[in-house]
Amino acid sequence: MLEGIPKQVKIVEVGPRDGLQNESRHVPTADKVRLIEALAAAGLKNIEVTSFVSPKWIPQLADGLEVCRSLQLPVDVIKTALVPNMKGYETACQAGLSHIALFMSTTESHSKKNINKSVDEALATLGELSKQAKSDGKWVRCYLSVVFECPYEGTVSPDQVARITDKLVELGVDEISLGDTIGAATPRQVENVVKLVLRSTEISKLALHFHDTRGTALANVLAGLELGISIFDSSLGGMGGCPYAPGAAGNLATEDLVYMLEGMGVKTGVDLEKLVDAGCLAEELLEKKLPGRYLRACLSTREKENCSKAGTASAVKQ
Amino acid sequence: MLEGIPKQVKIVEVGPRDGLQNESRHVPTADKVRLIEALAAAGLKNIEVTSFVSPKWIPQLADGLEVCRSLQLPVDVIKTALVPNMKGYETACQAGLSHIALFMSTTESHSKKNINKSVDEALATLGELSKQAKSDGKWVRCYLSVVFECPYEGTVSPDQVARITDKLVELGVDEISLGDTIGAATPRQVENVVKLVLRSTEISKLALHFHDTRGTALANVLAGLELGISIFDSSLGGMGGCPYAPGAAGNLATEDLVYMLEGMGVKTGVDLEKLVDAGCLAEELLEKKLPGRYLRACLSTREKENCSKAGTASAVKQ
Repeated sequence: MLEGIPKQVKIVEVGPRDGLQNESRHVPTADKVRLIEALAAAGLKNIEVTSFVSPKWIPQLADGLEVCRSLQLPVDVIKTALVPNMKGYETACQAGLSHIALFMSTTESHSKKNINKSVDEALATLGELSKQAKSDGKWVRCYLSVVFECPYEGTVSPDQVARITDKLVELGVDEISLGDTIGAATPRQVENVVKLVLRSTEISKLALHFHDTRGTALANVLAGLELGISIFDSSLGGMGGCPYAPGAAGNLATEDLVYMLEGMGVKTGVDLEKLVDAGCLAEELLEKKLPGRYLRACLSTREKENCSKAGTASAVKQ
Repeated sequence: MLEGIPKQVKIVEVGPRDGLQNESRHVPTADKVRLIEALAAAGLKNIEVTSFVSPKWIPQLADGLEVCRSLQLPVDVIKTALVPNMKGYETACQAGLSHIALFMSTTESHSKKNINKSVDEALATLGELSKQAKSDGKWVRCYLSVVFECPYEGTVSPDQVARITDKLVELGVDEISLGDTIGAATPRQVENVVKLVLRSTEISKLALHFHDTRGTALANVLAGLELGISIFDSSLGGMGGCPYAPGAAGNLATEDLVYMLEGMGVKTGVDLEKLVDAGCLAEELLEKKLPGRYLRACLSTREKENCSKAGTASAVKQ
């Protein structure tokens, strides 16, 4: 049953954006840069570093341009940033980004609540942005939210998802991340939606983005792997969630994802120990414990061993 | 890929034993009884209610006999208790139990540390107990610990597991629960071990017992389901762990298991809302938050809705 799964995967680290945007604590620019550099040092090659959403909505990431300009990352690390509109896109260009991420919702209700647009209006905006970005030679990812369960509309029809993914492919989007925004999907839903989407979308364009709200994230990853999906989003320590999705909590933790994949012989390119170091740093910066299970287990062991590793002492003593 | 999975499963609730034995807080007998009755009210039909291990080792469960005698459960609920030796077995008989659970470790080091016996010595004791129990007409389950990863010996050879399961079947054991005691297994290990064990053991005799220490429990359940396994152990709220396994924390939470299974159309017979009520009660009795993810998500929603349900108020305000 596991014979045919991909031998290696691409992990898209969304912690610095999806994580920090949901934290009330202000993290100074220099600390964000340290955190992103720690993620790159752990071997992550695809990192969403910030968003260019209005600071009125997301003040936590108001320093996105400065973050991008301050980062010193290896050349093979790809930085992306979330862009909601043309103004955000222009800032992403100023920041020198070659990769951008757009977003929209699968359901009318979530779309209205999240960005005050209907699904078709969101697609129109996204089409303009995508057209501009592609003509500028940029690579475009799109996050599709509430793909499985919507907090307002319940279970989402796979047909509705496929209708939108088909349009996104038509618009020239390079990668579509199917998001379980409220962490309510189960493996059978993953199978049903992904199978339908794959009828018209190349598998190499599809990513899966799970939240671990109900403990099902890695089971859903396993279902995705068995369908041949090889791109997964995750967040250091399980930081983040969606402020517009009631009950949502916790992205899939990158450490948990890497632990399972490497344990199954699937290459991630990530050094788990260094990732835990980055998790320690995140806990220090946010002054709180993060929910990622591998991180908690590992830090509790380090604590027992009275680990004196630089940078971890204050985090593990909480 | 999910077409052939079982349509219904048996869940073995181990919270009152495996959970409470690892809690430092003393729970009065009457409260234990309330908790077990709440689990039965949620629809759980197989509940491990206590152990008859020496109170010197596990003082938390010293009142096992009284618990068994006080319980008022529907006739179709099967109570089991963990039994380490003939003295414990005799108490289980006094308690009127028709189902007992034995245990042993897969590795020499864990067996020595846990019960100060080699694997073969443990098998010999287990053989005597099993022989007595079967001649008394009782049903016998055996927990096999550290089946995938051992905290002292690392990855366990599937051959070693199969050697022991073969012996357990020879001894007349009715059900073998393969335990990921330190919560370190990944789905490929589950597949490798279970496939080998299934060469000589009927699938109806096999249960899987996962811990969620690194977030992989439900992915491992999914792997088990795909192999046709239909018996899974879990613990209300994720209570418990193993005191002899360093770094171990948290059984798979019953709510998370039920949520995923029912979401996949696999019948469990459990009412998730009533299970959450039982989880609230457990949090009240233990005066702490439990780690189960579904429970946490659900209680945070109930809290937001200012739920005034009897019995939940104090728990959700922590």
